[in-house]
Amino acid sequence: MSMTGKDRWSITEQDILALEIGAGILGTGGGGNPYLVKLRALEVLRAGHKMEILPLESLPDDAKVVPLGGIGAPVVGVERIKEGAEGVRALRALEDRLGFKADALACQEIGGANSMEPLIIAAQAGIPVVDCDGMGRAFPEMQMTAYSIYGHQSTPSAMADPHGNIVIFDHAVTEIFHERMARAVVVSQGGSSTLALAPMTGAFTKKAAIPGSYSKAIALGRTVLEARAERLDPIAAICAAEGGHVAFKGKITDVKREIAGGFVRGDITIDGFGDWTGQSGAIELQNEFLIFRRDGTTEIVVPDLIVVLDDDDGTPLSTDMLRYGQRIAVLALPAHPLLRTPQALEVIGPKAFGYDDLTYS
Amino acid sequence: MSMTGKDRWSITEQDILALEIGAGILGTGGGGNPYLVKLRALEVLRAGHKMEILPLESLPDDAKVVPLGGIGAPVVGVERIKEGAEGVRALRALEDRLGFKADALACQEIGGANSMEPLIIAAQAGIPVVDCDGMGRAFPEMQMTAYSIYGHQSTPSAMADPHGNIVIFDHAVTEIFHERMARAVVVSQGGSSTLALAPMTGAFTKKAAIPGSYSKAIALGRTVLEARAERLDPIAAICAAEGGHVAFKGKITDVKREIAGGFVRGDITIDGFGDWTGQSGAIELQNEFLIFRRDGTTEIVVPDLIVVLDDDDGTPLSTDMLRYGQRIAVLALPAHPLLRTPQALEVIGPKAFGYDDLTYS
Repeated sequence: MSMTGKDRWSITEQDILALEIGAGILGTGGGGNPYLVKLRALEVLRAGHKMEILPLESLPDDAKVVPLGGIGAPVVGVERIKEGAEGVRALRALEDRLGFKADALACQEIGGANSMEPLIIAAQAGIPVVDCDGMGRAFPEMQMTAYSIYGHQSTPSAMADPHGNIVIFDHAVTEIFHERMARAVVVSQGGSSTLALAPMTGAFTKKAAIPGSYSKAIALGRTVLEARAERLDPIAAICAAEGGHVAFKGKITDVKREIAGGFVRGDITIDGFGDWTGQSGAIELQNEFLIFRRDGTTEIVVPDLIVVLDDDDGTPLSTDMLRYGQRIAVLALPAHPLLRTPQALEVIGPKAFGYDDLTYS
Repeated sequence: MSMTGKDRWSITEQDILALEIGAGILGTGGGGNPYLVKLRALEVLRAGHKMEILPLESLPDDAKVVPLGGIGAPVVGVERIKEGAEGVRALRALEDRLGFKADALACQEIGGANSMEPLIIAAQAGIPVVDCDGMGRAFPEMQMTAYSIYGHQSTPSAMADPHGNIVIFDHAVTEIFHERMARAVVVSQGGSSTLALAPMTGAFTKKAAIPGSYSKAIALGRTVLEARAERLDPIAAICAAEGGHVAFKGKITDVKREIAGGFVRGDITIDGFGDWTGQSGAIELQNEFLIFRRDGTTEIVVPDLIVVLDDDDGTPLSTDMLRYGQRIAVLALPAHPLLRTPQALEVIGPKAFGYDDLTYS
């Protein structure tokens, strides 16, 4: 298949630096810290590989698009450096199993480290990455994508780890079973592997994917970098770019965090300052920030994005970076419409995370 | 391939009843209670399926032999009734992946429930089971077979669960990684699945397998049944048949048992009676009985078989059947020579189970 349209564009080193920030913002506290994978992405670019983005609307209907991402506990992802070739091994194992060649890769999760993984693997494989993703943010489980929500059956899939092990999930009776089995294998492999999912057609991808994820995340990062350079308020710039608002500003007075079943759970308490003096903020998290409450009243609910930024320079803070005494801003950004349908809310709404008493509206 | 030699023999209902007892003895406390799978085996026979055993020496050198067994935590295996077709699904998935047809199945583990699984699956698939196994007893992990010890690479393998999920372990860098990944998947699937391993040639099987496992286990069960019918001592009959001896008789005074990491661990204490009055016995277990000590002195060490029997009727007792006050006999039966080579002891000797201070001799 020829996909050499002139609307393809190449990722530069500056794009990677901006993407690190943009993906950090869209990670809403999770998705894995993009720092280490950014270094790998820069290495791949400097080695002369081309990283190309294909606009979603340019995708031919019969293109074979493989959704792909790293899988593991976010805390392990930060500590463990990938061996480097496991992503391509996962892709090749999938192609070998199904007897096809991938025309392009699709990002599972634009938030956090998984924004970079498809770029690196596609560059090594010599194919483009589609300008889209499955979440428009980060979510803790892999069935929580618009792809799965709108009907993609993600098996057969292929998982490769840094040691050289390859596992094929040939058939899962549900997307949740796929997630469960894959998560179990990752833990047994050491906590940081790459999973290539069954290919989607171009036609399906154009219907189900969150559009423009790379251009948006890179633009968001640039907005922050430019605001900093011009000594403007990066937080206001983010809100303006994303149609969001500052929900709270304050100092962290308590951080509770524990790792259970491969996930990070916890909550943080914030003592308001500025316009919020005398008020108390609280955020509950499961890998990502899910719920924000002000003085006990729920104000932001998943799938809307809760973004925590360093109040001084607008650096997005992931759950593992939060510390007592930190001065933070809490932003609310609206989720993409594809994530707010009744069908989507069953999978990524508050009840899917155990908040039976909350309704997204 | 034609394997219709007249030396093939068919399993009868009486053979299944004897195998339940023989496999229970060779289970050395583990391997899963064969009771429920015996009921399924009887059903399959009564439905008109043929269960055929092919003598190991009759196996053509180029036959493709698939080692196969149930995998899971033994406690779950007892409680959970298999759906029934997952074994054939695992076999078909493996054949489909590798593009071959299995000529025969080989038992992974003659001790416990896994003695019956290959019979049921082979009967459904219309192929024989070779008269051999990989352990000559039961062991807790799947790399602990003579097949693996003597060079069989057991991936690609295919796992099927009762729900309909299928996972293919396409490549494992070591046999222990295969065990770890497979064990993790089983737990995520609910605890009771079937795994079909990469085929072995007939020539390799004849060299590496423990020979005569089915004929031996069935004969052992018959010995017990006949001794009971003739009011003879079944315990003495077992020792005579297997070249073993009674190491201890006494009353259980303490049972410690816990489930950790998918395995049952613990120890039991026995107060001697008869010839052992005034002496104290102790058994340590990890799914199977591994070490027997008398008055603090180690007397039986894995891979030799430690068999615990009800002292009254010779019923083999698995670890989950042990209770305070039970009157038991502890038997020592020698392991097959293939399990006692230096190469084998690295995988199934005392050090492989964490007994760094013990040497098998």
